[in-house]
Amino acid sequence: MIIGRVIGELVSTQKHSTHENLKILLVQPLNLDGSERGDALVAVDSVQAGVGQTVLLATDGYAAFSSVGLPPSPIDMAVVGIIDRIDLSA
Amino acid sequence: MIIGRVIGELVSTQKHSTHENLKILLVQPLNLDGSERGDALVAVDSVQAGVGQTVLLATDGYAAFSSVGLPPSPIDMAVVGIIDRIDLSA
Amino acid sequence: MIIGRVIGELVSTQKHSTHENLKILLVQPLNLDGSERGDALVAVDSVQAGVGQTVLLATDGYAAFSSVGLPPSPIDMAVVGIIDRIDLSA
Amino acid sequence: MIIGRVIGELVSTQKHSTHENLKILLVQPLNLDGSERGDALVAVDSVQAGVGQTVLLATDGYAAFSSVGLPPSPIDMAVVGIIDRIDLSA
Amino acid sequence: MIIGRVIGELVSTQKHSTHENLKILLVQPLNLDGSERGDALVAVDSVQAGVGQTVLLATDGYAAFSSVGLPPSPIDMAVVGIIDRIDLSA
Repeated sequence: MIIGRVIGELVSTQKHSTHENLKILLVQPLNLDGSERGDALVAVDSVQAGVGQTVLLATDGYAAFSSVGLPPSPIDMAVVGIIDRIDLSA
Repeated sequence: MIIGRVIGELVSTQKHSTHENLKILLVQPLNLDGSERGDALVAVDSVQAGVGQTVLLATDGYAAFSSVGLPPSPIDMAVVGIIDRIDLSA
Repeated sequence: MIIGRVIGELVSTQKHSTHENLKILLVQPLNLDGSERGDALVAVDSVQAGVGQTVLLATDGYAAFSSVGLPPSPIDMAVVGIIDRIDLSA
Repeated sequence: MIIGRVIGELVSTQKHSTHENLKILLVQPLNLDGSERGDALVAVDSVQAGVGQTVLLATDGYAAFSSVGLPPSPIDMAVVGIIDRIDLSA
Repeated sequence: MIIGRVIGELVSTQKHSTHENLKILLVQPLNLDGSERGDALVAVDSVQAGVGQTVLLATDGYAAFSSVGLPPSPIDMAVVGIIDRIDLSA
């Protein structure tokens, strides 16, 4: 899974029928120290995440589309948690 | 998922039976600012996308072949939306 | 999916039972202009492809093993089309 | 699969229903000689692993969520063993 | 799929129940000319492969765990053949 920060949203009118009513978020991946890592990702939201929140993402098709209660559908990444805290051992 | 621009089409006569009647698109991945990112991708079309349009792609076999209503078939990427707008937070 | 050129074949006597009677091809990935991209891939053949032909490959386990009509089996890449033509927009 | 060392834990209150009661670990990937390789990973725990232990991780959605006895759920990596020993041939 | 050479074995006592009785191999990926490519991989054995043998690996969870006759289980890579010969076209 991947840690990131929600930075925006993507809007499509003409889209796959299973994507109706889904919110598609843009997420900037983060390192453990909060610095940015690589390019923004595009994921469905399954936990009512909002811009600026630090979140947990799950990848892989089967795992990701299960997050929004759908039968097999073209979704490969999902926001699945709002992160409260990262506990690192010294 | 991945943001890209449709740049062409791939034509095969001799192909897997599940690929009959599918349109196979070439898609250039894009960064959030519209600049190009990496090499062109090859994906089935599930939303009647056309050359020049900015689209959303879903990866992963199970997720991708579900986009065209097929039982398990050798498809690993699909165009699943025409992107109207990317809303980035300041 | 990936564009490549068939460059050889891999031969194993002692192998997983589901691999009996499968042809395992070596495929050099190609860029859209026909130049080589990265290292050779290893894939099952589902379309009677031959050495020197330009082909389309599908990746991902579930998608790939479905190409040869097998129940779940350890196959993660398949040649699924002989490419006639790539149409790129100007 | 991947070899790593558990370095911490990730805590979320607002999360996907399937993630309730799961422990989410931070794992530093390791080379065979014990040196660090790349960035920390985020994985569910299926074997009561603790901080400082060297562990085996399995990736891929379907494989990973099966480790915690769940139906399809948004999990893409799991800690599945505590490594006792790596036997390398001379 | 990936070509590699078996270089060792990984031993765990405390592990996922589905991993009981499985042999976990360390495999060095190889280029077509036999030179080493990248870092060692960790895979279950499904063909009684031994140290020093050149083998074929299948990746992807669903494909990999099917190699050892298991229901869904946290396995993402499997050794599925002993390679006799690589035939490259001139």
